[in-house]
Amino acid sequence: MSVDRNGLEILGREECLRLLGGQSVGRLAVTSRALPLIIPVNFLLDRERILIRTTAGTKLEAATAGAVVAFEVDEIEPMSHTGWSVSLTGMATVVEDPADRARVATLPLARWAPSGFDHVIAISTDIISGRRIPYRHAARRTA
Amino acid sequence: MSVDRNGLEILGREECLRLLGGQSVGRLAVTSRALPLIIPVNFLLDRERILIRTTAGTKLEAATAGAVVAFEVDEIEPMSHTGWSVSLTGMATVVEDPADRARVATLPLARWAPSGFDHVIAISTDIISGRRIPYRHAARRTA
Repeated sequence: MSVDRNGLEILGREECLRLLGGQSVGRLAVTSRALPLIIPVNFLLDRERILIRTTAGTKLEAATAGAVVAFEVDEIEPMSHTGWSVSLTGMATVVEDPADRARVATLPLARWAPSGFDHVIAISTDIISGRRIPYRHAARRTA
Repeated sequence: MSVDRNGLEILGREECLRLLGGQSVGRLAVTSRALPLIIPVNFLLDRERILIRTTAGTKLEAATAGAVVAFEVDEIEPMSHTGWSVSLTGMATVVEDPADRARVATLPLARWAPSGFDHVIAISTDIISGRRIPYRHAARRTA
């Protein structure tokens, strides 16, 4: 088991992808009107990429298409302060290939809110890292 | 009740602060080695600012001190797809005033992982927004 300088267990790529595959809500960091912003999104892990459904013409679409974005998923129990998190940074692109679009349309990818025509954004997982908070550090408070 | 273009209920500043006050884990977006990154952090709402404990000399400290960062807290039930999220964008500064440091040291502000000497970062909540996903939109899937 590898541990980082903060005492957190370092998760390997395969473990990170396995954890992402079990979740459906993540947080996306984008730049909106020149300011950084984090928004929660539904997602699906598909072929080692993150898929997010957006509505054409929205700020979310504008902020993600062609941009480098950050995405994070975690499962943290606040009271015991145990859990894990997986963070990735990747290029976001609109899924445009017709065959890919048709296949993606069959996947169980929820949308965050109803309205309008859909686009699907894909984020690569090339840069990914994960940490697990070991139980021995749980709920430590120094204040 | 105000509703945004996506059908999500818009939460006012007071409601956003009330929701933040009831939580202890949030997500922080920073720039690390020129790339955007989201990391989970423990936080405490104190006097309408977000307080986060960091270790002096870490990348987190370097990325936050003096920078404009994004911060987000949510409570989302993935199965029913109901809940709320509050996002803010603000300047992050190290708490340096001696009287303020002494007072902050008495607050129940957990640290994310053990090690080293602490700094406390404060993020202003001037730019804040929140959304609630109404039950009528819960679990809608279009795929």
